[in-house]
Amino acid sequence: MSRLPDSVTKAISAIEKLPGIGPKSATRLAFYLLNTPNEFVSNLAKSLIDLKKNTLICKDCFSVSDKDICSVCDDAKRKKELICVVERSIDMMNIERAGIFDGVYHVLGGVINPLEHCGPDDLKIDELIVRLKSLVQQDKKEIEVVLATGLTMEGEATALYIKSRINKSELEDKVLINRIGMGIPIGSDLSYVDEATLSRAMESKRKL
Amino acid sequence: MSRLPDSVTKAISAIEKLPGIGPKSATRLAFYLLNTPNEFVSNLAKSLIDLKKNTLICKDCFSVSDKDICSVCDDAKRKKELICVVERSIDMMNIERAGIFDGVYHVLGGVINPLEHCGPDDLKIDELIVRLKSLVQQDKKEIEVVLATGLTMEGEATALYIKSRINKSELEDKVLINRIGMGIPIGSDLSYVDEATLSRAMESKRKL
Repeated sequence: MSRLPDSVTKAISAIEKLPGIGPKSATRLAFYLLNTPNEFVSNLAKSLIDLKKNTLICKDCFSVSDKDICSVCDDAKRKKELICVVERSIDMMNIERAGIFDGVYHVLGGVINPLEHCGPDDLKIDELIVRLKSLVQQDKKEIEVVLATGLTMEGEATALYIKSRINKSELEDKVLINRIGMGIPIGSDLSYVDEATLSRAMESKRKL
Repeated sequence: MSRLPDSVTKAISAIEKLPGIGPKSATRLAFYLLNTPNEFVSNLAKSLIDLKKNTLICKDCFSVSDKDICSVCDDAKRKKELICVVERSIDMMNIERAGIFDGVYHVLGGVINPLEHCGPDDLKIDELIVRLKSLVQQDKKEIEVVLATGLTMEGEATALYIKSRINKSELEDKVLINRIGMGIPIGSDLSYVDEATLSRAMESKRKL
């Protein structure tokens, strides 16, 4: 490895720090970039810098945005009293892509995860309570929260924690708290589905 | 997707252009970068720019280098009359890592591949002949070429083409032409090895 130019070694170790990219892939990417036009690489580098520089956080829902208020929150057609709570902006994007949700979002910024030193105070949970209280003050009817954190242990715990926080905030009878539907993913062969999912799917069976 | 800030969309499409990275991975990487410190991203971007700016091509062997002559060609202990011909600098690096080769290299810059419009003139084959002729003129004994292009159809064709070029250049009886050893890779379970490899391995059996 000492035979490699410094610039190449440095690029490899910078690329290697990205999630899901090991030393072999990083090396292959670096050598790939060496064989591309200068313009390709400078465009890539610029877009990464711009990604950080030009991306803001929506003041209402904390999703990534290019304005102070994101395009979903800014959309008059969206139901402001229907809030889907997600871990990250990328989850919001996925739900948007499905095109079936006409409410707004609330991006927590992660999940409660003691192993990664992420407690409730590191997430936008207080901000969610404030939003809900303000909806109540505005006399909105049918206020609903859809908890769409992951179906992981941490995601489940975070959903339960948020539910208890809403209830403690005397919002209990004013806010409907739902969890996103659980079951067998579309396109699955049942023989590959794990037991926990199967039992959840059985619980949430519905009339055809 | 229209809901995403422009800066994020641009970063995703720039990352997506890298080999082996699909739209899903690109999106995940972009959102990962959004959550990292500015310094991390600027360091990554800078290392990519530097990769192109500070990397030179060795004038002797055409490998990537930080000087005009790479550290292998510049090493007095390396046998200059033993040349390992590889497709790319990354292959040279892999052989170097194994630490078993005490000659020098010749980086072709690819393989003959008509489908990708890469002919013999696009590779450093003329340059290899020039190098060999100059070794002959210097009265070097035991000049040897190890053809270490890939064991793919294109790699094999390129190796055969180089052999014919060397022979045509009246270097035939002055240069020993070897192909890198073929056989079963270390750590392989024989039941997973394809037949072509097995038959090559049988041909190149050796006494224990």
